Amino acid sequence: MILRIDRLQTELPPPSDPDPAGAEAVQELMGGRFGEMSTLMNYTFQSFNFRDRAGARPFYDLLSNIAAEEYGHIELVAATINTMLTGCGDEQGPDTTLAGARTLPNKQHFIQGGLGALPQDSRGMPWTGDYVFSSGDLIEDLTHNFFLETGARNNKLKVYEMVDHPAARALTGYLLVRGGVHQVAYARAVEKLTGADLTKLFPSPRIPTDKIPECQPHIERGEHKRLYHFSGADYAEAAAVFTGPHPETGEELEFVDDPPEGFEPNDLPPQPAVFAPGYSPEEIREIAGSLRERAGLAG
Amino acid sequence: MILRIDRLQTELPPPSDPDPAGAEAVQELMGGRFGEMSTLMNYTFQSFNFRDRAGARPFYDLLSNIAAEEYGHIELVAATINTMLTGCGDEQGPDTTLAGARTLPNKQHFIQGGLGALPQDSRGMPWTGDYVFSSGDLIEDLTHNFFLETGARNNKLKVYEMVDHPAARALTGYLLVRGGVHQVAYARAVEKLTGADLTKLFPSPRIPTDKIPECQPHIERGEHKRLYHFSGADYAEAAAVFTGPHPETGEELEFVDDPPEGFEPNDLPPQPAVFAPGYSPEEIREIAGSLRERAGLAG
Amino acid sequence: MILRIDRLQTELPPPSDPDPAGAEAVQELMGGRFGEMSTLMNYTFQSFNFRDRAGARPFYDLLSNIAAEEYGHIELVAATINTMLTGCGDEQGPDTTLAGARTLPNKQHFIQGGLGALPQDSRGMPWTGDYVFSSGDLIEDLTHNFFLETGARNNKLKVYEMVDHPAARALTGYLLVRGGVHQVAYARAVEKLTGADLTKLFPSPRIPTDKIPECQPHIERGEHKRLYHFSGADYAEAAAVFTGPHPETGEELEFVDDPPEGFEPNDLPPQPAVFAPGYSPEEIREIAGSLRERAGLAG
Amino acid sequence: MILRIDRLQTELPPPSDPDPAGAEAVQELMGGRFGEMSTLMNYTFQSFNFRDRAGARPFYDLLSNIAAEEYGHIELVAATINTMLTGCGDEQGPDTTLAGARTLPNKQHFIQGGLGALPQDSRGMPWTGDYVFSSGDLIEDLTHNFFLETGARNNKLKVYEMVDHPAARALTGYLLVRGGVHQVAYARAVEKLTGADLTKLFPSPRIPTDKIPECQPHIERGEHKRLYHFSGADYAEAAAVFTGPHPETGEELEFVDDPPEGFEPNDLPPQPAVFAPGYSPEEIREIAGSLRERAGLAG
Amino acid sequence: MILRIDRLQTELPPPSDPDPAGAEAVQELMGGRFGEMSTLMNYTFQSFNFRDRAGARPFYDLLSNIAAEEYGHIELVAATINTMLTGCGDEQGPDTTLAGARTLPNKQHFIQGGLGALPQDSRGMPWTGDYVFSSGDLIEDLTHNFFLETGARNNKLKVYEMVDHPAARALTGYLLVRGGVHQVAYARAVEKLTGADLTKLFPSPRIPTDKIPECQPHIERGEHKRLYHFSGADYAEAAAVFTGPHPETGEELEFVDDPPEGFEPNDLPPQPAVFAPGYSPEEIREIAGSLRERAGLAG
Amino acid sequence: MILRIDRLQTELPPPSDPDPAGAEAVQELMGGRFGEMSTLMNYTFQSFNFRDRAGARPFYDLLSNIAAEEYGHIELVAATINTMLTGCGDEQGPDTTLAGARTLPNKQHFIQGGLGALPQDSRGMPWTGDYVFSSGDLIEDLTHNFFLETGARNNKLKVYEMVDHPAARALTGYLLVRGGVHQVAYARAVEKLTGADLTKLFPSPRIPTDKIPECQPHIERGEHKRLYHFSGADYAEAAAVFTGPHPETGEELEFVDDPPEGFEPNDLPPQPAVFAPGYSPEEIREIAGSLRERAGLAG
Repeated sequence: MILRIDRLQTELPPPSDPDPAGAEAVQELMGGRFGEMSTLMNYTFQSFNFRDRAGARPFYDLLSNIAAEEYGHIELVAATINTMLTGCGDEQGPDTTLAGARTLPNKQHFIQGGLGALPQDSRGMPWTGDYVFSSGDLIEDLTHNFFLETGARNNKLKVYEMVDHPAARALTGYLLVRGGVHQVAYARAVEKLTGADLTKLFPSPRIPTDKIPECQPHIERGEHKRLYHFSGADYAEAAAVFTGPHPETGEELEFVDDPPEGFEPNDLPPQPAVFAPGYSPEEIREIAGSLRERAGLAG
Repeated sequence: MILRIDRLQTELPPPSDPDPAGAEAVQELMGGRFGEMSTLMNYTFQSFNFRDRAGARPFYDLLSNIAAEEYGHIELVAATINTMLTGCGDEQGPDTTLAGARTLPNKQHFIQGGLGALPQDSRGMPWTGDYVFSSGDLIEDLTHNFFLETGARNNKLKVYEMVDHPAARALTGYLLVRGGVHQVAYARAVEKLTGADLTKLFPSPRIPTDKIPECQPHIERGEHKRLYHFSGADYAEAAAVFTGPHPETGEELEFVDDPPEGFEPNDLPPQPAVFAPGYSPEEIREIAGSLRERAGLAG
Repeated sequence: MILRIDRLQTELPPPSDPDPAGAEAVQELMGGRFGEMSTLMNYTFQSFNFRDRAGARPFYDLLSNIAAEEYGHIELVAATINTMLTGCGDEQGPDTTLAGARTLPNKQHFIQGGLGALPQDSRGMPWTGDYVFSSGDLIEDLTHNFFLETGARNNKLKVYEMVDHPAARALTGYLLVRGGVHQVAYARAVEKLTGADLTKLFPSPRIPTDKIPECQPHIERGEHKRLYHFSGADYAEAAAVFTGPHPETGEELEFVDDPPEGFEPNDLPPQPAVFAPGYSPEEIREIAGSLRERAGLAG
Repeated sequence: MILRIDRLQTELPPPSDPDPAGAEAVQELMGGRFGEMSTLMNYTFQSFNFRDRAGARPFYDLLSNIAAEEYGHIELVAATINTMLTGCGDEQGPDTTLAGARTLPNKQHFIQGGLGALPQDSRGMPWTGDYVFSSGDLIEDLTHNFFLETGARNNKLKVYEMVDHPAARALTGYLLVRGGVHQVAYARAVEKLTGADLTKLFPSPRIPTDKIPECQPHIERGEHKRLYHFSGADYAEAAAVFTGPHPETGEELEFVDDPPEGFEPNDLPPQPAVFAPGYSPEEIREIAGSLRERAGLAG
Repeated sequence: MILRIDRLQTELPPPSDPDPAGAEAVQELMGGRFGEMSTLMNYTFQSFNFRDRAGARPFYDLLSNIAAEEYGHIELVAATINTMLTGCGDEQGPDTTLAGARTLPNKQHFIQGGLGALPQDSRGMPWTGDYVFSSGDLIEDLTHNFFLETGARNNKLKVYEMVDHPAARALTGYLLVRGGVHQVAYARAVEKLTGADLTKLFPSPRIPTDKIPECQPHIERGEHKRLYHFSGADYAEAAAVFTGPHPETGEELEFVDDPPEGFEPNDLPPQPAVFAPGYSPEEIREIAGSLRERAGLAG
Repeated sequence: MILRIDRLQTELPPPSDPDPAGAEAVQELMGGRFGEMSTLMNYTFQSFNFRDRAGARPFYDLLSNIAAEEYGHIELVAATINTMLTGCGDEQGPDTTLAGARTLPNKQHFIQGGLGALPQDSRGMPWTGDYVFSSGDLIEDLTHNFFLETGARNNKLKVYEMVDHPAARALTGYLLVRGGVHQVAYARAVEKLTGADLTKLFPSPRIPTDKIPECQPHIERGEHKRLYHFSGADYAEAAAVFTGPHPETGEELEFVDDPPEGFEPNDLPPQPAVFAPGYSPEEIREIAGSLRERAGLAG
């Protein structure tokens, strides 16, 4: 079970110039083989399928906390894509209000969607359950996860280099730091179980995280060395695995007993050309208003 | 963001006779077009892509709470499949310990997986992001969701009729009741926005829920008329939409301010024939034990 | 069984400036989840799988007539795409006669195809049988169909806003009107079976059809309130379901006993750069000519 | 445009013992790479995309008539599958009415479908638009079609050998004969255009059609040497291509000016366990009855 | 470029009792995510895409030799599947010669194929290019390859446990040993580049290779510690990476300057029920005989 | 088994201006339905699955030699794509070093790949095993192969017309000639088995190969009439099938007893922006250097 909190794990800028081509690139971080849907679903299924939890609890708890954090990552990627697409459809049609999108590779942001995120990659191909690896063999699953985070870091770096829209940069700067934490966590878990020191592979790809300007503020706040506890009472034993020095900075790793505080998401404006949330958004607003009133919520 | 709670929304029986063929049928409820991955991801993406949240908050909150509940549903389906597969691999190999699985249609439960759930349907085909509909148009999204829940109810009924393993029956009995609540919720939302009374379509399929023995205890506890608030402070305005009489029983619908209490999951035993959580589970147990000790967690 | 008639359901303009990017968008109306392949195949399979036809004939006949009309729609979408692509390949190669296409997202119109329609969506992804819903449960199938037509109307509106090539506009103007008729037909069918009044959802999306200039001539001719009988002697009982006032105009719905008269399709010119119908079209013409002569057809 | 006629191209026996495993094999003839969806859609798209129709009319007309016939073939395959599945769900649930299906590879006939045909192959994988070849180059398209019909004949022969349910045998016996006609037609068309005599490849696979008992009555009636005209006034010039002796029997080929008369389809009984056409079919019957009465159709 | 040698890398027994269900399991080793198509194509594409080959030659050569060996592995898996299916179709049809296959999950071995291997996994799903990881980043590609070989070892062990047909056991016994060598090779390569000692992960899964009886003869011959040079003059520098002790036995690793000698493949008999190599194999034999004679090859 | 030779079958120019859009078009020749992955894998699987090899050796040997040659073709296509992409990533990041790629349809060349070839088509869709036809029926497989080569020739001609980058033209000029040889070979094989003279279909598409300037040097060297023996001792009997005059030039066909000599591939430079072969390629070079030294290879 989960509880949802209506906050984002990092702060995103409000919409500025729309960048639909850049949004297509960011989709790789959502629905690509190494996107956040993949990290979320790999760890989630591995935790659901975990056998002998009592016997291996620190590992189970580590996995479950990271899985929970990844939910916040798909939320962030979605918010970024929505932000980047805002402004492409703010005129009410009909007419040629979407003509600008005719030459875009992925027209589905406009035709199927309402200028929102889709569970697709940068080719427009859907995320698929075949991206999930859940062998049940703990060492293998962790080996996989280390590889997956490495591929994910690669893809985030490339999207960083390709897209400089402020929302995309806020996203990739943050995800690079947090993905790095997950790489470390899985490296440590493999080390505890086998003795192999995967931290010698850091950074992988070989570009140091602190060379990236948008990562620096997060590193300064210590986000690169903390694993958060995304639960109230459960999943608390991850601390037994997430220990030792950070492979890039040498600082001690920390398991923080609470989730991060988070940031208020921007409430993105209607895009009537694509009927989001409707052709005449004000009608919905009115109906909602009177429902709230009737329920004693207004004011 | 989410917090995870290590409890299941309903109680599942412990493993009994394994039923790998039945587990394949249950996979449809996980990764099929109308499975719980689909309900989870449809509502999650719709909530992520929701524009003008302030203006339409009761609808946004309704969607977000149901999305949060669905996470618990994929968890339940996974637990069921794991339970049904337990006992197929409890002898350590090598040898022909998995020979019994040779004639099963979906051998991937054994070959790729460790006798656990996969994000696949009953054909073994992976869940795909193309199952997600997120048009951004509120009325359309809700119309879709009503249809999706109807298809989901159909599929649960069929799996109920096909598989009588105790875990499968505990699952379908519960999901039929909760899915019914979501059908009602979306019907009410459409009605508030358009005046169309979709509750006249109930029950759809036309078999009354209370004819199903495994549903009755849940109905007796009132689970069929309650929508839960799966958050602390946020998403609280769903109450403004989820109102009026239940279409089958006439009782008043309720928005409950807390999540359900939930049930302790069974800790499923190792299956060494498929190396879950390892070929020699006791080694992992030992390592975990000394990590816990070192971290001051051992009790 | 079917008989084919070599006429189009509406008039399309002859080729003018080619618009390959626009043609990619129009592909969504062919092979997308909500494209005409989907409406055709959903209703066709549902009619093939209809049980107890005698007992439910008016519904069976309604479905079968709409299915038959949809065949004409895939034909129209194909004709539109062919028209829009005409002129991209009218020079005989080799040489760089197709260089202009190098930057197009879907190069398969040029490489695999001969500047013709493909059963793909706007991403270039193939239409798939998994888009077909055929549960056999009449109420569910109709609920699905209403949702499908709503999604289809959304997609047509978006393509309308995105592409203003004369052929695309002739297509979307017509399909919006006819798709609207199918929405009404399924709403009425659901109402007859359950009492739920889905016409309150009209128009969905909320933009009135008569605001679209290219729809107006069709509305003036009454195309928005007529269901056609696409058969000689069979499938005649749809009239029992397709009754009552039109939800947008209040006019009485009509079941017309004949198919529409249709329009002569344009015979599109060869495109030798893509070898359609050959590298040297005149050779084929000559062979055909002498075959016709030998068969006594020439004249 | 098409007109639909509610008759089947050959006679099928009424339901007898259900054969769900056999029905899965027959699905290959529906949705496989060489199934009837493929022949239908290949020829249909090729005819839609045909350029310079006036200049090459005999070929255009040949293609269009065969395309029209193929529609009747998907109808026949669907009717066969429905017939073979009838009896698997005739008890009203809930309870374990579908337990027998638990071990079937393709459970979707029961879970997604209502014991009806699906656009899938024998693996349960959906038919895909990527099975369509429409290059626009007439000689290539015809070369492809000859190959496609050869693959189709292979698959029909295999299904014949695998499934001896009376409905399956009625189907394969008929389709083998008619598919053979299409092989001949495409061979002749290639010959007219290039001089290459593909009839030397007959029969391909090398088993003579008349060795198959279920083919013999159709051969006796001359079905192996006739191409039908599936239109009223249009597509009449196929006769100029479909000429010469039949490659297996030496008889003269005939272009028949009318479609075959066809056979009354069986009206298959409800299957309430899968809610087809509903959980309580008699309710639908009643509603339909009063609608017919109100429309002046009853009696 | 390659030269082909008509020998198998290990000896397979001649056909005995057919085992079509087992053959389906073995397909996972052909076309699954971790099958030999995947190892072959991953290493092949990585070697094709290798930049700065002169600068990193020992790694380029290591990769290229392993890629070359994998070609022999898909050949072996194919030969195994063909062996296991031999005997399912040795009677000439028509008639119900394939009736026994009706209940098999993957009927395509019979319907599409001629009792031969297909590029599919154990579900019957096709191998896909999306299984290839070729980032161009050497350390990442090697990390991936280590993970891939680990997953492959897992799958081979499971197939071993599931299928005891003599051909399957000959295959898995051999592949487990050779796959182990590739795991070691990639571990060593990562170590040379980063210092991380992945050999501590051996064996992964944790079952020692020498516990498997069918592996023992290969280990006795030293196959577990040798990398072969699959080229004449090129790709000779792999020796610089493939050094040090074997992680399970401590013996020194060897780069052998020649390919293994290999074994004569069995020439599998015709299966006329599936027309392989024809309905009347003797006709083909005759034609081939006279062609050989005419070419001066006979005798 | 194979031996790899580190040479290309034709000469490619060194990198010049990068052409990422053109590289996307060339991908169709790699991973499209008619790309070189398809020809390679079709013939490879057909040869693996060949039954009664002794009885039909000339055909088995023909197939196996062509299969072997096709390996060299995927290598060539990969080298071409790598060449065309070189220069898109030669600046070290981070920063917006990949900004130019943001508007490309297939961003995966940059995000997933390291500016290298992927097993995808021009849409970015992965090659799939369902493109392989291996019926086991020799005549059918050969009929298929003739069709496949025809489709492949069509696609090569279109890519020729679309992309004039020097590497792409060197590739298509060569492949058109060699593909033509394979068309001839399969035509001859069909003729030997059935008497049907498929060479009357040449050229197909109808554009003569010698009209293409980049084909002329290869034709002058006789490449259009030679089949190579890609083996040492095995597969030598293809000569018995590959006989008679060339259909376009009338010259006698030749089976050459050796593989072509080949050309040295260009060693393409690092692209540090995409980390190929690393973010700091010189580090890898250093490590490799000392490994070579230690192994006695340096100098």
